[in-house]
Amino acid sequence: MSKLEDIVSLCKRRGFVFPGSDVYGGFAGTWDFGPLGVILKKNLMDAWWHYFVEERDDMYGVDAAILMNPRTWEASGHTATFADPLVECKECKSRFRADKIADGITESVTTEEFLNTHTKCPVCGKENWGPIRKFNMMFTTHVGAVLPDDDAELASKNIAYLRPETAQGIFVNYKNVVDTIYPSLPFGIAQQGKAFRNEISPRDFILRDRECSQMEIEYFVAPDTWEENFEKMRGLQHDFLEKVVGLPAESIHEYEVPAGDRAHYSKRTIDFMFDYPNGSEELMGLAYRTVFDLNNIQRESGKSMEYRDKQTGETFVPHVIEPSVGVERLFLAVLASAYCEDEIDGNKRIVLKFPENLAPYKYCVSPLLKNKPELVEKARVVYEQLKQKYTFVTWDDSGNIGKRYRKQDEIGTPKCVVIDFDTLDDDTVTVRDRDTTEQVRIEIAKL
Amino acid sequence: MSKLEDIVSLCKRRGFVFPGSDVYGGFAGTWDFGPLGVILKKNLMDAWWHYFVEERDDMYGVDAAILMNPRTWEASGHTATFADPLVECKECKSRFRADKIADGITESVTTEEFLNTHTKCPVCGKENWGPIRKFNMMFTTHVGAVLPDDDAELASKNIAYLRPETAQGIFVNYKNVVDTIYPSLPFGIAQQGKAFRNEISPRDFILRDRECSQMEIEYFVAPDTWEENFEKMRGLQHDFLEKVVGLPAESIHEYEVPAGDRAHYSKRTIDFMFDYPNGSEELMGLAYRTVFDLNNIQRESGKSMEYRDKQTGETFVPHVIEPSVGVERLFLAVLASAYCEDEIDGNKRIVLKFPENLAPYKYCVSPLLKNKPELVEKARVVYEQLKQKYTFVTWDDSGNIGKRYRKQDEIGTPKCVVIDFDTLDDDTVTVRDRDTTEQVRIEIAKL
Repeated sequence: MSKLEDIVSLCKRRGFVFPGSDVYGGFAGTWDFGPLGVILKKNLMDAWWHYFVEERDDMYGVDAAILMNPRTWEASGHTATFADPLVECKECKSRFRADKIADGITESVTTEEFLNTHTKCPVCGKENWGPIRKFNMMFTTHVGAVLPDDDAELASKNIAYLRPETAQGIFVNYKNVVDTIYPSLPFGIAQQGKAFRNEISPRDFILRDRECSQMEIEYFVAPDTWEENFEKMRGLQHDFLEKVVGLPAESIHEYEVPAGDRAHYSKRTIDFMFDYPNGSEELMGLAYRTVFDLNNIQRESGKSMEYRDKQTGETFVPHVIEPSVGVERLFLAVLASAYCEDEIDGNKRIVLKFPENLAPYKYCVSPLLKNKPELVEKARVVYEQLKQKYTFVTWDDSGNIGKRYRKQDEIGTPKCVVIDFDTLDDDTVTVRDRDTTEQVRIEIAKL
Repeated sequence: MSKLEDIVSLCKRRGFVFPGSDVYGGFAGTWDFGPLGVILKKNLMDAWWHYFVEERDDMYGVDAAILMNPRTWEASGHTATFADPLVECKECKSRFRADKIADGITESVTTEEFLNTHTKCPVCGKENWGPIRKFNMMFTTHVGAVLPDDDAELASKNIAYLRPETAQGIFVNYKNVVDTIYPSLPFGIAQQGKAFRNEISPRDFILRDRECSQMEIEYFVAPDTWEENFEKMRGLQHDFLEKVVGLPAESIHEYEVPAGDRAHYSKRTIDFMFDYPNGSEELMGLAYRTVFDLNNIQRESGKSMEYRDKQTGETFVPHVIEPSVGVERLFLAVLASAYCEDEIDGNKRIVLKFPENLAPYKYCVSPLLKNKPELVEKARVVYEQLKQKYTFVTWDDSGNIGKRYRKQDEIGTPKCVVIDFDTLDDDTVTVRDRDTTEQVRIEIAKL
């Protein structure tokens, strides 16, 4: 098995991530977080929110609806351009992303260019293709009383989309935030929330799914200060990844996206690439979106997006720096960095070496033997004490102590506290370290 | 203005809740949380999660995808029955929920019964109705490579729904949780997340919106213990509402839903009604869902949902008690309870008397005068000290001190700390109480 397969297997076995709707054979491109995964995901989202919003004086949060006025996506350009090149095999009717099944072509491939690649259908092996068509990746739905047998015109009037990015939920609230909070430039608006992309071929576990959680900031700056603020956000992103989340700096590589490959709205983009088990992939992004989005909204809504500088009285539309990260991508980066295999007494051991601030449980409390009521009773007292102090404490009295250690290693619990007969005499416990497997004797009061 | 209108106005003015996509004139049934609202919403969600999941030993979290395998909704009965009676005026083509525009009829009204009410069209005043049609409230979308000009058959094969409730995201994960965590009965699986309902007429601010956040627990119990566990959850719900969230007990009323009005799956339901400004409305629900959902999943998936009791070895499908609450409903209940108007020095004052654990900011720090650098500098020191300790501290140097107090009252900040010239001499500050408006002199070290 590849390392990624090992991680997927551990995720399912220990309750981090299950395939979505697993009981019905799954649902492509969706994943459900299990009991352990929920805690890790929440730890990551809270850490980001705390670092980028709560601790700072220049950040404000919003939480916008997933269903937005469709004019949002007209203004942002998504209805026109958020599309992949789709091609259909006329023989077996299978559909593919043209740029994924043929070599050396890009997303903007034409039908003629594609036919010239003489690609064979990956399903039936024939070479009989229809034309390249643009497939918009936004999920569409209808809002309001539209019935299945209504005509296309009525349906199209009521169309809405599942937001393909959280950024627009921030931009549409920019004016309301300015008018209620009166922030000084530079300031940021942050959002965490779901975004949806109808990927033709979801793949790579939680890296390329149809539904993901994003954490984004739109940082509004005076036009001539964009470079210094870009550098500031770049520093914060590294700091967050390396110091708060504890990813190894050597696994993170900046990729300066060249002009031709950048999104149409961006004048500078750095992709923060991470060495995932299956190769280097984008983990975070940092984009200078210029005045593109606020200008679009100004044009589409007819409302001024100008900001009036409190000191100079000057008015202008602010420029925007956007740091963004996908929660699932961060989740997998943390899992992949924590995942280790070693050998203990000749047996293979799997261990998740999470930093303590991210570990789902900080302590596991166990009685050495589960059939000795006096040990169980004492262990419960220690468990309740620790739980009051740390909340994230788990109890384990299953199997024997060796099996419990292996289980706690696999879910990344830094310390196992074991209550034995000596505990009853001297109020000391054995504390076993996840990473070194060393055991030390500690007084309960000093835990 | 009614009290609800006052609250809506305050929410917009101070950045708690904005209309969704406001810059484009809104989008019916959607609302966006602003900077203050995000903090209050997170405080409520975290308080619920902490009380019902983290503090307890019998609860596990999941976070399931919004897009689920469509068989989920076949099994649950939603595709067949999650519908409102829709009627169309043949004159002006307006569409309505039949049971909302005519008196004395229910959701199961027939065309004949409706015509007998001789209701006139609320838009054009005519009485020329089409037949009652069932309008399913689930939002539909298509997953995978379906193009707008594809035929209906292909489209229907790829149909998916935005989940109309979070409960099914829990039930489809029941088996995976049992197989990975091996919990003892009774145990609960909890989830917080979005749910979507295509209301024909969204109304009442955030009470009846098209997109809401739910917090639900499915509590799995041995069949003959359902009554004691129902009582246990009933107690926890009251405890949470009254002690954790601080809602006045006299505003909460239990409504024992009679057999004919209960959802088809429920053998007992209590609605926890709250006295909202516009009248009594459901805030929380507690339902005994019996074995309905696990039986449906067992039948639809062909997989056993049986649980094997660790002590007795007995196997059975567990029964389910479901406590649930809508985040927006809780949010509005807290706002409505906190909202007060009184008079100070002959002027009307609006104040949000939040309990301290829910207030977006715990302290506001201000220099008495903003044009005295020595005061501003000292105030910044106090601000940084407090912020390190409490995180939720705000800074305000706008307008004069009276205006700042009014603003902090309106956003519910319990204490305002003011730095004046005496502070420079003796390191004491004025602390002004939100509820009493009393001011006391306190040493900085004792804050």
